[in-house]
Amino acid sequence: MKKVNIGILGLGTVGGGTYDILKMNKELITRRTGVDYCVTRVLEINMKAVEAHGVDPAIVTSDVDAILTGDDVDIVIESLGGVEPSSSFMLKALNHGKSVVTPNKAAVAANYEKLTSAAKAHGVQIRIEACVGGGIPALTAITEALAGNEFTDVMGILNGTTNYIMTKMGDEGLAYDAVLKDAQAKGFAEADPTADVEGIDVANKLSILMALAFDKYVAPRDIPTVGITGVTMDDIAAAKAKDCKIKLIAHASIDEAGKLSYEIKPMEIPYSHPLAGVSNEFNAIYVTGNAVGEVMFYGKGAGALPTGSAIVGDVISIMKAMA
Amino acid sequence: MKKVNIGILGLGTVGGGTYDILKMNKELITRRTGVDYCVTRVLEINMKAVEAHGVDPAIVTSDVDAILTGDDVDIVIESLGGVEPSSSFMLKALNHGKSVVTPNKAAVAANYEKLTSAAKAHGVQIRIEACVGGGIPALTAITEALAGNEFTDVMGILNGTTNYIMTKMGDEGLAYDAVLKDAQAKGFAEADPTADVEGIDVANKLSILMALAFDKYVAPRDIPTVGITGVTMDDIAAAKAKDCKIKLIAHASIDEAGKLSYEIKPMEIPYSHPLAGVSNEFNAIYVTGNAVGEVMFYGKGAGALPTGSAIVGDVISIMKAMA
Repeated sequence: MKKVNIGILGLGTVGGGTYDILKMNKELITRRTGVDYCVTRVLEINMKAVEAHGVDPAIVTSDVDAILTGDDVDIVIESLGGVEPSSSFMLKALNHGKSVVTPNKAAVAANYEKLTSAAKAHGVQIRIEACVGGGIPALTAITEALAGNEFTDVMGILNGTTNYIMTKMGDEGLAYDAVLKDAQAKGFAEADPTADVEGIDVANKLSILMALAFDKYVAPRDIPTVGITGVTMDDIAAAKAKDCKIKLIAHASIDEAGKLSYEIKPMEIPYSHPLAGVSNEFNAIYVTGNAVGEVMFYGKGAGALPTGSAIVGDVISIMKAMA
Repeated sequence: MKKVNIGILGLGTVGGGTYDILKMNKELITRRTGVDYCVTRVLEINMKAVEAHGVDPAIVTSDVDAILTGDDVDIVIESLGGVEPSSSFMLKALNHGKSVVTPNKAAVAANYEKLTSAAKAHGVQIRIEACVGGGIPALTAITEALAGNEFTDVMGILNGTTNYIMTKMGDEGLAYDAVLKDAQAKGFAEADPTADVEGIDVANKLSILMALAFDKYVAPRDIPTVGITGVTMDDIAAAKAKDCKIKLIAHASIDEAGKLSYEIKPMEIPYSHPLAGVSNEFNAIYVTGNAVGEVMFYGKGAGALPTGSAIVGDVISIMKAMA
């Protein structure tokens, strides 16, 4: 049986969840792939996390190069977050002939072309399913099962924090500040919620979605973006009067001449539209293709195990190609 | 550039739609796969269909063996429908080292093990995305992007005709007989609607879903199945009083001891459940995995181009593996 060695950079929420799935479902994944895999290296300095996930301390290192260039790693899972040094780490791993899997949307959106070119040049893969929509397998669907389609339109509810806030404001009539405090208390929103509520996180995800669906790269900072901080109870009442909900929507479309339009802003979505039923912390990606018509993917957009599920799916795909 | 030859059995609705997509999106598919493909053979005796799809009469044959065993076919698309002779045709093609793509749920559900074993024995693929949910890429998601999950529960709205009837009865207060007539007039229901309204079509699909998600084969005839013919306006009113819609649901789940339960019947679905928002002829597959949690896939469950989209996605996947 083919053996594949995996290195993980960082045992935070997502890295830890990924490690847990690789352990919990090992027998099943080995049966499905015909590959015997092993996590041979973990980059982590927080020994509490190492202990919490039951990682053998003998494989834990603080030397990132041991993972990026070492002979005992075939696939690198980059789960550190942030544009740098993550992007440089991923490039180094790719340049050393290792495939890379990452949930790091900021790094991928910032360096999409560099990363994909490096993978191509070295005959390895960079897989990024976990970057958009957490566990929802939308990116793989767009690039694989739906690859026979010319895509014309992509819409998404791509941030769980803002969708939770919009849901509570709409369904329970609570004002923005009160809901944000509640979300922070429940761990659905960060102490500094700027990246979520101002749409910065969504811009990274829309940049990636456009690159895959339309083969056109637009930097996140070039996407016109309005967050949810300006949404008032009056706006919500006005939407309700039209049988609509307000959702923070990432939208991109391409016309027949190939002109791409894109924006992120709170939009009124009619109750009859499938995206209106996407509530609380759930995410959805709604895609239109010239053959399939309209398709929607719905699920948990964040969290240790859902995001880990997407990462493990990418690892499986790479392992199958190596078997 | 690698060249791949495709043979199509039958230019009916789905076979014709598939041919159209392979022609319409050829430049894009060739760019995405790096494979130059060609439809080298088409089995059809209806020359009106040949003309309508602009197929070169020189590649049209009434000799099925020319496609199943000929040297100029690498991938066979079986779009004839019905258990036989389709199953025998597919087995013959697989035994001659050709990969097979099919939307034929009746044949696949009846002969799942024979077909998958033959593919394995000859190192080729049988791909069946189009068998369940038309254009919705749920099967590929279950077997690939979500393959890191142990699945515990699968629910689906898997038949467009019955979902259209349930939607009209629920939303417009029309009785079963009146809606069925309307659906037949609009082409959403067949003159003999038995296979749809009695759940027979859904049983084929649930059999396939269970085989893929749980790795357990259950013959369609062994699935307890209740169709929608007994649903009354009183049932719908009673559901409404509980904030529920009645939907024809295919449901399978597996408990911790590995015991599989399955049934098909009209069920009350709460408005708050994502499946309640799946209206008219749309389909959806709602899956629970031990890592990803709940995921839903939504889209068009039938039709020439949506179903063709799924077939072309499978063809692309095979071509990539051959490249």
